[in-house]
Amino acid sequence: MSSLFLRTLREDPADAEVPSHKLLVRAGYVRRVAPGVYSWLPLGLKVLRRIEEIVREEMDAIGAQEIQFPALLPREPYEATNRWTEYGPNIFRLKDRKGGDYLLGPTHEELFTLTVKGEYASYKDYPVILYQIQTKYRDEERPRAGILRGREFLMKDSYSFDLTDEGLSESYAKHRGAYIRTFDRLGLKYVIVAATSGAMGGSASEEFLAESETGEDTFVRGPGGYAANVEAVTTPAPPAQSVEDKPAAVVHHTPDTPTIETLVDFLNTHTDRKFTAADTLKNVLLKTRQPGSADWELLAIGVPGDREVDMKRVEAGLEPAEVALLEDEDFAANPFLVKGYIGPSALQSNGVRYVVDPRIVTGTAWVTGADKADHHVVDLVVGRDFTPDGTIEAAEVRAGDPSPDGTGVLEAARGIEIGHIFQLGRKYADAFSLDALGPDSKPVRITMGSYGIGVSRLVAAIAEQSHDESGLVWPRAVAPFDVHVVIAHKNNPELFAGGEALAAELEAAGLSVILDDRKASPGVKFADAELLGVPTIVVVGRGLVDGKLELKDRATGERSEIDRDGAAQTIAALVRA
Amino acid sequence: MSSLFLRTLREDPADAEVPSHKLLVRAGYVRRVAPGVYSWLPLGLKVLRRIEEIVREEMDAIGAQEIQFPALLPREPYEATNRWTEYGPNIFRLKDRKGGDYLLGPTHEELFTLTVKGEYASYKDYPVILYQIQTKYRDEERPRAGILRGREFLMKDSYSFDLTDEGLSESYAKHRGAYIRTFDRLGLKYVIVAATSGAMGGSASEEFLAESETGEDTFVRGPGGYAANVEAVTTPAPPAQSVEDKPAAVVHHTPDTPTIETLVDFLNTHTDRKFTAADTLKNVLLKTRQPGSADWELLAIGVPGDREVDMKRVEAGLEPAEVALLEDEDFAANPFLVKGYIGPSALQSNGVRYVVDPRIVTGTAWVTGADKADHHVVDLVVGRDFTPDGTIEAAEVRAGDPSPDGTGVLEAARGIEIGHIFQLGRKYADAFSLDALGPDSKPVRITMGSYGIGVSRLVAAIAEQSHDESGLVWPRAVAPFDVHVVIAHKNNPELFAGGEALAAELEAAGLSVILDDRKASPGVKFADAELLGVPTIVVVGRGLVDGKLELKDRATGERSEIDRDGAAQTIAALVRA
Repeated sequence: MSSLFLRTLREDPADAEVPSHKLLVRAGYVRRVAPGVYSWLPLGLKVLRRIEEIVREEMDAIGAQEIQFPALLPREPYEATNRWTEYGPNIFRLKDRKGGDYLLGPTHEELFTLTVKGEYASYKDYPVILYQIQTKYRDEERPRAGILRGREFLMKDSYSFDLTDEGLSESYAKHRGAYIRTFDRLGLKYVIVAATSGAMGGSASEEFLAESETGEDTFVRGPGGYAANVEAVTTPAPPAQSVEDKPAAVVHHTPDTPTIETLVDFLNTHTDRKFTAADTLKNVLLKTRQPGSADWELLAIGVPGDREVDMKRVEAGLEPAEVALLEDEDFAANPFLVKGYIGPSALQSNGVRYVVDPRIVTGTAWVTGADKADHHVVDLVVGRDFTPDGTIEAAEVRAGDPSPDGTGVLEAARGIEIGHIFQLGRKYADAFSLDALGPDSKPVRITMGSYGIGVSRLVAAIAEQSHDESGLVWPRAVAPFDVHVVIAHKNNPELFAGGEALAAELEAAGLSVILDDRKASPGVKFADAELLGVPTIVVVGRGLVDGKLELKDRATGERSEIDRDGAAQTIAALVRA
Repeated sequence: MSSLFLRTLREDPADAEVPSHKLLVRAGYVRRVAPGVYSWLPLGLKVLRRIEEIVREEMDAIGAQEIQFPALLPREPYEATNRWTEYGPNIFRLKDRKGGDYLLGPTHEELFTLTVKGEYASYKDYPVILYQIQTKYRDEERPRAGILRGREFLMKDSYSFDLTDEGLSESYAKHRGAYIRTFDRLGLKYVIVAATSGAMGGSASEEFLAESETGEDTFVRGPGGYAANVEAVTTPAPPAQSVEDKPAAVVHHTPDTPTIETLVDFLNTHTDRKFTAADTLKNVLLKTRQPGSADWELLAIGVPGDREVDMKRVEAGLEPAEVALLEDEDFAANPFLVKGYIGPSALQSNGVRYVVDPRIVTGTAWVTGADKADHHVVDLVVGRDFTPDGTIEAAEVRAGDPSPDGTGVLEAARGIEIGHIFQLGRKYADAFSLDALGPDSKPVRITMGSYGIGVSRLVAAIAEQSHDESGLVWPRAVAPFDVHVVIAHKNNPELFAGGEALAAELEAAGLSVILDDRKASPGVKFADAELLGVPTIVVVGRGLVDGKLELKDRATGERSEIDRDGAAQTIAALVRA
């Protein structure tokens, strides 16, 4: 360590909130260059490369073939799929010296599709799985948590190309298996959740989430094994009811009821029925805009009044359209929108598309706005008094909600997305006419799968799951070194010689070793050993004269004494156990 | 190969001129995505990774430590060194969603300097050598020859940081040794030439050029070991002469002498002396502009009339200034410039800086323009009739010129720049105040070296040196596979089974194998084996029934028969020889 390019920091970096960010900076693994843009110092790069190699081995094991695309990409292929426009401000765009438009690749569906089209022609060529491990770029609005959500990051992305839907299912299953093996080898605690497809369009889709309180993704799971990210949770619709037996809708004068709570209180005071927020129908006004369009369209969403609208769920449901809340000027331009008292009637008679939560089924009766200030209507019945234009998964998902698989109630947790597998289908094959010539000489349209692993993000995800108050605690499979040898003295020549000899023996035994031979106090060295997180720490201290070394397990904190004689073999056996 | 993502092409790509480009595309190693931007298909990526690993091993062997910087870099550090401006149109610039200026790193001096400054403080920390193997970007005006000069490419760049000039010399020598070992292991034929420093400023500088007729760099060498790229060649100045004994300058009316040749003819016809082009002084007008400046300045260069001005040498000498030829409007704006008849007198009396070739020394007499249409002056003597403002290495270097080391004459050759080592000195340390605290508590300014290897370019450079009319011929150290097994039949089940068994045995013996198990004719398979260039080809053919295999050495074309029994061991021994 006296010549290692490494300086540890005693203080957390000012911009760090999550443990992995704090510790990876303090322990000298990464350094910030710009928002969401990081340098990898020697130890960080070692961990990154070890993870990369495990990902590579598992991809090779399913017969995937590695290639590498450029990160600098011309506009045209992304124009063909409309993603040049759809990505909006989320990608980096640039011009070359001749004015040609380029982007920094955020994902490579277009290039993979075009490349397979360029090389392959016959049905005999398929199926094929290709992958790359490559630096990608996204101009995130809010890069956060160090390398957890960066703007330049390392990803493994692979694509499967199959002749049939069954083939796609097999390729998908292969990836699912490879991902499970990969994340197991990395020692991660993770869940596989049903997922929406994001901007890529398609059908079957699952995310691998590393469980972590600091994760950005919220997911839910039920007792029967159901798990989904909140964007993907489907709300079981209750059975439709008869509209015949319901009381007539009545408009009430409800002064001073700007909120659901005040409305419910008012009705419970001024009528002889008991209402709860769940009996009210809250209508939320949004506007949406299709990619490339200049025009916004109004959209109204009705949800039970006891639930908030979850914008992430709305956005996932409306992708690739852009979604925004209404501003004052939008209300001014549409005077039929009586803020706080909006009901289905004014919306639908003014041509606003009105979609509702799946719980709002035929025959249910609701308290909602009467399109007039200080007035609400009670017993507005679906299928009798109004008919929504469709349903949408917009209402927040809550712990305690029934699990869609009927096995009980959901619990909520947070995770970090580390992998995504996903049946793209024929979207990109259609965009580029990727066909194979079939055995009957007729073209067969190829169907694709898309599969990603956030390789650099994994460094942070593992650190989030594997640290304590003293520092990082790397699983053996990804640790920057196998063994950390601490010479527990500032300058004692025998101990220095002993430490150097031991390190040489360990290396001769095939282990990678970091030797703390700095002329620093034992306390500083012990603290740094804890901070760096190498799984096995060997202390060369006073016991050496009696032929003893101290061994410490970083994860458990267990200490033991071993004989100096044969120490390299003892430690090698431990590391390889 | 029946499932390998590879399709070979029978035809050369239309845009390819040099052999490496043609063959790497035909053999399915790389594919073009945009000008100077390529994808690596499976075989190409394997070769690239093998080269990368050799480079890494040799860097590690000199104690260099690997790190990795981002490619997406903020403007500020490049502003501090003025390179944001100096690079002109040669870098890719972009803005993020918040309007911040970024560039795609063409080279990383700034980041390395800032990073060392961030981590290190004491003289005890030094020296240190850091390196990265990283994708770099340059917006080349003329990307050419496939991956030979790309706009996205893989480079190893390293930097040394030393306390003293002697330390820098040692770091430089270490790199020189590492580069020699690297290029030797890669089987390259190369020369080490003295070089100019390019845009980076500094002192000692050498380039490693792979000898190749298709190379962009011209270099010269003398019989005594002198070698330099043409930009770096210094012209030995002849001794100054007395001005006393020279005839007076006389202006001649020289009608119809627009060229040096017609002028010499005219004088040889109309005077009784004999002139050659070497007796004339040709004055070439250029304009130069400092980086960031809007204003062009005129510059006149005088060279002996038997030599052209070499713009690459001029540009190298004037860097970082921009250089351009005069346009008609420039002549119009400066009527004292009488095109074809420009002489020192009008230039210097009108304030144009006038620099000359080192051969134009005091006491030499010249025929040159008389600043008047159809007139030239004879016997214009340096130091008597005019005094240049300085010298410049502008004249072309020719085979047959005297070697600057006095050992004989130069010969010229062409090469591909594959490495550059270079003593930067304190330019970047000065820009960012990179100091170490010395033993006396006084700051010591750090001195740096900069060292590059074009990793992706090496794939092409090796291919340029190692191919024949049938295809690529890889040196063992970088071949995509150790052995190419050809099943010399379209569908014979015994031969297919025999080929598969042999391939499995070879892999079990630790060799990497490509097996041609395609249902294609032997002719197609043999042609592809030659094209792909794996060094050892094993043919599984009719001899198999008699327990025989055919072995072919791709480089020499030698064929031999070996026993099927023990074939894996025989071949493994050959590969590892």
